[in-house]
Amino acid sequence: MIRRCFQVAVRLGRHRVLPGVPQVLPRLNPTSAFGSSTDALVSRFCLKKTDLKDYALPNASWCPDMLTLYQEFLEKTKTDGWIKLPSFKSNRDHIQGLTLPFGLAVASDISDWRIFTRCIQVEGQGYEYVIFFHPSKKKSICLFQPGPYLEGAPGFAHGGSLAAMMDETFSKTAYLAGEGLFTVSLNIRFKNLIPVGSLAVLKVDVEKIEDQKVYMSCIAQSRDQQTVYAKCSGKEVLSLSTRLCPATITLRTNGRKNAEDALPSWDPAF
Amino acid sequence: MIRRCFQVAVRLGRHRVLPGVPQVLPRLNPTSAFGSSTDALVSRFCLKKTDLKDYALPNASWCPDMLTLYQEFLEKTKTDGWIKLPSFKSNRDHIQGLTLPFGLAVASDISDWRIFTRCIQVEGQGYEYVIFFHPSKKKSICLFQPGPYLEGAPGFAHGGSLAAMMDETFSKTAYLAGEGLFTVSLNIRFKNLIPVGSLAVLKVDVEKIEDQKVYMSCIAQSRDQQTVYAKCSGKEVLSLSTRLCPATITLRTNGRKNAEDALPSWDPAF
Repeated sequence: MIRRCFQVAVRLGRHRVLPGVPQVLPRLNPTSAFGSSTDALVSRFCLKKTDLKDYALPNASWCPDMLTLYQEFLEKTKTDGWIKLPSFKSNRDHIQGLTLPFGLAVASDISDWRIFTRCIQVEGQGYEYVIFFHPSKKKSICLFQPGPYLEGAPGFAHGGSLAAMMDETFSKTAYLAGEGLFTVSLNIRFKNLIPVGSLAVLKVDVEKIEDQKVYMSCIAQSRDQQTVYAKCSGKEVLSLSTRLCPATITLRTNGRKNAEDALPSWDPAF
Repeated sequence: MIRRCFQVAVRLGRHRVLPGVPQVLPRLNPTSAFGSSTDALVSRFCLKKTDLKDYALPNASWCPDMLTLYQEFLEKTKTDGWIKLPSFKSNRDHIQGLTLPFGLAVASDISDWRIFTRCIQVEGQGYEYVIFFHPSKKKSICLFQPGPYLEGAPGFAHGGSLAAMMDETFSKTAYLAGEGLFTVSLNIRFKNLIPVGSLAVLKVDVEKIEDQKVYMSCIAQSRDQQTVYAKCSGKEVLSLSTRLCPATITLRTNGRKNAEDALPSWDPAF
């Protein structure tokens, strides 16, 4: 039986293993996570030349607060070490050197994939956001403007849309700060509703990297910081270690013809 | 200055107040929350006759697991007290008797709103789900099938899409079980990834209603319960009490011409 768990590592293009051969993947060196490897990750993530559409660029739907703060941070990319992250339609585009030895994409009848936070294509209707990352400070700023298709209570963004935006910002930040792979926990306290069409500024900090996990915090607030929309803490796992990918993993098919995907299994304390 | 906070209560069609007049909204009687009021809420929520499209009905994209479990629960609606909840494209459609005295919908240039979990219109591409609710047991089952536009890691649902699905199931359950209005906290532990196109079964329980809050838990797992995808606990506030809608609330405009919406403010312990 093919240990499909390892397909995930291969799909993610960072750990290559032979099918059927359980391997102990290398544990991350925290020093390297906070050292030059971040620069390498940023270089790999922020392609200088690409034909892929970057969705994290201003468009006519952006509100004035979003536009002016975007310009402010764009200036900081020239003077203060901030980096504007590109945002492609799929994580498949973000991960370079991707190979699919077991041909999930080929075997599947699905050809059109989208990362959840770019699922709505009409400008202004869904997620509008851009993430800036500071490699040496290990922090990110996400400018987020929810559209009318992200509604919960009438006129306001659904709490789940903010949760997903926080998760996505954690995910990208953790990857660049220390090769964080998957979210294992999110603890969110909602404090105020975000009006549809307005700006929420998410400030994300890497608190620590310890025991193969990236510990992160986030506060989402109005531009003037007078209104806190939510606070969140979260953890991302760093690599597919043996604990996450045990030799005893069982292949699961979930009863769908094209859903024989791998289930990387982990068991964080709950 | 109009205290726009109260617009929310009016928009939600359940508390009518005069503009500019701070009011102490009635505190909920826990007995009524677990008594006949649930039946009244269910009747109001599940319209017998409507021209609105119900998105919680089987379509060609549903996987076999989803279809068969849907049929099983549909049988239980006849014999075991379960109720299938309809799912319209907007919460505006769900809330009956809606009046907008300050004309938010008229003033806005947005005419097309969607609840976040119905934001993608092509069948199978985004959220496919149906919620069954049991009034006397105060529990829900949500059958959730993520599509390829909900992707995170290649081939798997974004954690944020599951967080939003849990939040939405909490929200509808809390509303029907005790008039819960807004989510104040979500604590999620992710354990396994959900393959795109497969079924996740979310079991939601109301643990208690106390101090104006509905305390809830959720486990998301495969149909055979052998794979736990995530566990979650959450709280919903019951009504817009003075704590949630303080007299000192400040109107905020967020720098966008049509975003002068109310910001119901609360401050749960973080």
